[in-house]
Amino acid sequence: MVDWAAHAAARTSRLKPSAIREILKLTQRGDVISFAGGLPSPDLFPTTTIGAATERVLRRHGATALQYSTTEGHPPLREWVAARYANVAADDVQIVSGSQQGLDLVAKCYLDPGDAVVVAAPTYTGALRAFDPYQVRYRTVETDDDGMVPEALEAALAAGAKLLYVIPNFDNPTGTHLSLERRHAVVELAGRYGVPILEDDPYGELRFEGAELPHLRDLAPERVIHAGTFSKTLVPGFRLAWLIASPEALEPIRRAKQAADLHTSTFVQAIAVEITADGFLDEHLVKIRDHYRSQRGYLLDALDRELGGGDGFHWTRPSGGMFVWMTVPSAADGTPADTTALAHDAVAAGVAYVPGESFYPDGGGLDGLRLSYSVATPEQINTGIARLGELLRRATLRDV
Amino acid sequence: MVDWAAHAAARTSRLKPSAIREILKLTQRGDVISFAGGLPSPDLFPTTTIGAATERVLRRHGATALQYSTTEGHPPLREWVAARYANVAADDVQIVSGSQQGLDLVAKCYLDPGDAVVVAAPTYTGALRAFDPYQVRYRTVETDDDGMVPEALEAALAAGAKLLYVIPNFDNPTGTHLSLERRHAVVELAGRYGVPILEDDPYGELRFEGAELPHLRDLAPERVIHAGTFSKTLVPGFRLAWLIASPEALEPIRRAKQAADLHTSTFVQAIAVEITADGFLDEHLVKIRDHYRSQRGYLLDALDRELGGGDGFHWTRPSGGMFVWMTVPSAADGTPADTTALAHDAVAAGVAYVPGESFYPDGGGLDGLRLSYSVATPEQINTGIARLGELLRRATLRDV
Repeated sequence: MVDWAAHAAARTSRLKPSAIREILKLTQRGDVISFAGGLPSPDLFPTTTIGAATERVLRRHGATALQYSTTEGHPPLREWVAARYANVAADDVQIVSGSQQGLDLVAKCYLDPGDAVVVAAPTYTGALRAFDPYQVRYRTVETDDDGMVPEALEAALAAGAKLLYVIPNFDNPTGTHLSLERRHAVVELAGRYGVPILEDDPYGELRFEGAELPHLRDLAPERVIHAGTFSKTLVPGFRLAWLIASPEALEPIRRAKQAADLHTSTFVQAIAVEITADGFLDEHLVKIRDHYRSQRGYLLDALDRELGGGDGFHWTRPSGGMFVWMTVPSAADGTPADTTALAHDAVAAGVAYVPGESFYPDGGGLDGLRLSYSVATPEQINTGIARLGELLRRATLRDV
Repeated sequence: MVDWAAHAAARTSRLKPSAIREILKLTQRGDVISFAGGLPSPDLFPTTTIGAATERVLRRHGATALQYSTTEGHPPLREWVAARYANVAADDVQIVSGSQQGLDLVAKCYLDPGDAVVVAAPTYTGALRAFDPYQVRYRTVETDDDGMVPEALEAALAAGAKLLYVIPNFDNPTGTHLSLERRHAVVELAGRYGVPILEDDPYGELRFEGAELPHLRDLAPERVIHAGTFSKTLVPGFRLAWLIASPEALEPIRRAKQAADLHTSTFVQAIAVEITADGFLDEHLVKIRDHYRSQRGYLLDALDRELGGGDGFHWTRPSGGMFVWMTVPSAADGTPADTTALAHDAVAAGVAYVPGESFYPDGGGLDGLRLSYSVATPEQINTGIARLGELLRRATLRDV
């Protein structure tokens, strides 16, 4: 017999299963209204368009679309990605199998054991999972409704760091975005301390209102590795995304990608080219933004109704994306909130959220929780938030 | 400015670009006949079947086939894979994005820096590329026409090893397969020295003749992680493959897979299920085997004709797969062969192969070269081997 656990590499001790996925399993019960998952709404999947595009790809390019391909990615897809950004050439684009792979490859190429990564607290749990096996340390940065607080960021960078991870637009889990002023502050500080930036932007195209703000990459192209994806705009099931950076920054990443999986599926890359060739995505984005904007409205209205009574509950009011972050006050008797403990009561009461703790690398976040409005119906939002409101008021010894 | 090279992690110094991919670039010239690539023949891609399967998937299961999915893989695909093996349950199957990702994940979970991996010399260059970034050492095992020589294997294992990597069937690059007796010897020796086995089997279903031999996993299910793939039987462009091992062995691999890319494309997994549901693959394999069997015949006939004159050239006679391995004798004046140096002369003469050096982790292999018969036409095989024969006889100072 092989004792596999004893045989495992040291880095596996840092591999944790996703807390979110564990909670999602609990919510399979039909009567639980879930605000836990971050799934895009399947009603928005352009199934017919994908079918027609696949038919054309197989008819015109079957032999190449089904064959091995280059590690860098399918050239016309790299051209298309480059054209969606300012001052990006196809050589600056590396196709990856979902943003998650982009995060993994950046960590693999730029983080040695013991290196410090600066992250917001809270931050995307999947990024922490991607970085963890490289045996890194974290320096966390306090955030407010405009994202990372510059003074806190400077303190983290000054303490020594190898990489700064930022989600500038409609953050997972907070829903907030970095203001223009803060964007300039972030790249200025990173430059001053000589730290490269990994800019993760899955939600930037899901803006509901207000002017588009520049990417961090636009402000400091030589310092930033930018990650974009089709997962929230087209479909997540393709596992199709990209990194944008200078060829120098991408050079080890390309070799690491070749070692990790040779290349991303040629077939889905060719289909994505066919789908996007005629401007379809921009038309489709109008529909997606309209849908999530309405969903956000239902959720914020329900929260205002159920918990807006001045009892110290706070939540963000996102201008895009899929998430609202709530902080829960201490109970009337002073007992601090514990959203992890409450999560099980919530599921028992027929409503699910993701406890804030999942988004903190080093503990903390017990007063926070993430709510996603992406898939629930308006009725489910009203019922689910009524359940959550009652639970939270009761747990904090407020009027029920 | 960021000095990306200075910023790179130590492991990147071990990341090398694939020599094969570099040679493939040289062979883009239209008049070079290439035996270098290991690409499946695109004439065998079941394009119509894939199109019909995609249409059905989108019509019946669009919302799930395009959504995020479980890290373990699409349940019906795992069931299908399990059913193709003896004594394998769906829980023993992990879907991965090509075998290459399987090799990467096994290395990530089971190899610490400095650990020794036992490999055949020569062995698959992509496996070396997958293992390299984990900063491992190699112990190489001499091979003959029946695969790894047991005495050499025992010496390597006795010297201390963390993992044994084996391609039992129609090896890349040699084309040979492990005899039944050797299979028993390999698992017995691995057991005696307490070393787990990574069994890489991309070519096992491409057997031209003779009885099927048991997988190493069949002989020692508790000790083996087995890797299988659709790349050589269906299409490589899906990037769809699987690992088979005990749930204990797969446990860290699942967490590493989640961190690396969440899961493999749901869309291609659903299409593969649809394609394979009605027994299509077994019918298709008959066609694939017939084609490659003929191709092998053309290549061996050409080699016999051009270099079969008793001048010390040796090549393998594979019973399956895509590859022939040749060893080139020293020149008549005693100068040792150098297939790396000759590769450029060969391209200039209009023929390409992969130099043997690429398949040795620690140098060596300068007398070897790999020939693939998968994509050339019979005429190209005859012309290309005539060119190669003349070049090699001239280089070794034999009669031209």
